[in-house]
Amino acid sequence: MIQNLAKRRKTVRKFKKEKPPIEKILKIIEAAKEAPSGMNAQPWHFIIIETPERKREIRGLCEEGEKKFYEKMKGKLGKWLQDKGFTWKKPFLSDAPYLLLVFTDVRAPFAVQATWLAIGYLLLALEEEGLGTVTYTPPNPREIEELVNAPKHYKLQTILPVGYPNDEKPKYERKALEDVISFEKFEKNEY
Amino acid sequence: MIQNLAKRRKTVRKFKKEKPPIEKILKIIEAAKEAPSGMNAQPWHFIIIETPERKREIRGLCEEGEKKFYEKMKGKLGKWLQDKGFTWKKPFLSDAPYLLLVFTDVRAPFAVQATWLAIGYLLLALEEEGLGTVTYTPPNPREIEELVNAPKHYKLQTILPVGYPNDEKPKYERKALEDVISFEKFEKNEY
Repeated sequence: MIQNLAKRRKTVRKFKKEKPPIEKILKIIEAAKEAPSGMNAQPWHFIIIETPERKREIRGLCEEGEKKFYEKMKGKLGKWLQDKGFTWKKPFLSDAPYLLLVFTDVRAPFAVQATWLAIGYLLLALEEEGLGTVTYTPPNPREIEELVNAPKHYKLQTILPVGYPNDEKPKYERKALEDVISFEKFEKNEY
Repeated sequence: MIQNLAKRRKTVRKFKKEKPPIEKILKIIEAAKEAPSGMNAQPWHFIIIETPERKREIRGLCEEGEKKFYEKMKGKLGKWLQDKGFTWKKPFLSDAPYLLLVFTDVRAPFAVQATWLAIGYLLLALEEEGLGTVTYTPPNPREIEELVNAPKHYKLQTILPVGYPNDEKPKYERKALEDVISFEKFEKNEY
C-alpha cells in the first residue's frame, strides 16, 4: 500500500482550478504532525495560504529571487534545469488552490531532519487524497519569512503548492533497488 | 489510511528476537527510493547490517561516542534525556535483528532534506509491515562511515534498528492540530 502510493506519487507543477475542500488539507497535516522528532519537540509549523493576493505576493517574491538565481547559475544544476525546460517563472505559486508553507523551529535538535521526515508523511498523505504537489524551495526564504511574520527561529523549509493534479509530465525514473542498497558495507568506491 | 499508520506509529527501542524476513526490509526500501529529490539525484544509500559481529562493532563505536556526549551534556536536552531515563547505553544497536544505515551524498542539491523525506516514507512502510524502529543519530558518524567504507561524500544520516516491536513505552503525545497550523501568516509572536 505505502509502496504503491510511493511508486504512483510524482511531482506535480500544474493543477486543476477546482479547489479541494479544506478538510483534505487538514487531514494531511494531521498525518504529518504525528511524525517523530528529537525530544518530541515537534518543531514544524504549517501556514495554509488560500487568498489570491497573498499567493501573488509570494509568487512575486519568489520569482524575483529566481531571476537572480537563474542569472548567476552555472554548472550541473544549471544544465539540468535548462534541459528540463525550467525557468524563473513559477506559475504554480499563484495557480495552485493552496500554498502550504512548512516552517521549522531551528532551536529544536535535528529540527530540519524531523521536519523533512514529516514532509515525507505529507507527500504520501496528499497522494492518498488524490492531491499533488512539488517540494519547492525558494532561493530567498528570508523574504517569505518576513511576509508571513515568522518568529525569529522559524525557518521556511519548503512551499508546497497543493491541488488536484493536471500535469502530464511523467515521473522521473528511479534507480533500481540493487543500486541503492549494500549489505554490511559499501561495496564500490564510487557512487 | 496514512493518517492511521502515522497515528499508530511510535518509536520502538526494544525488539523481539525473531528476525523478520529480508523481503520486508527490501520492500520498505523499495518504497523509500521512490521519494522525490532535487534534480532527481536520489542521493540516498542504504546499508543493511545483519551480522552480530558488525552490529556489535557499531554499538561499541556509538556507545563510546555516547559516553563522551553524556559527560559533556548540559541544558534542556540533558535534562530531557535524564527525565526520560536515557543513558549512553544503546542495546538496540546489537539486539535488533537488522540495522539499516541511511547515507546521503551531500554533493546533491538538498541532499539531507530529500533523504529525510525518504526516511519519512521508510517509517510509514515499516509500520505497515508491522516493524518498528527509532531514528537514532550517533554522536560520532565519522567512525561509522569509516567502518562501512563510505565514499567520501556519503554522510551517515541515521541508524535505524529494525525488528518486530517489543516496547511497551507509549507514544509521546503530539500537539493539537490548531497549535501547528495558521492561516495566511503566523498569528502569535512566540512559539
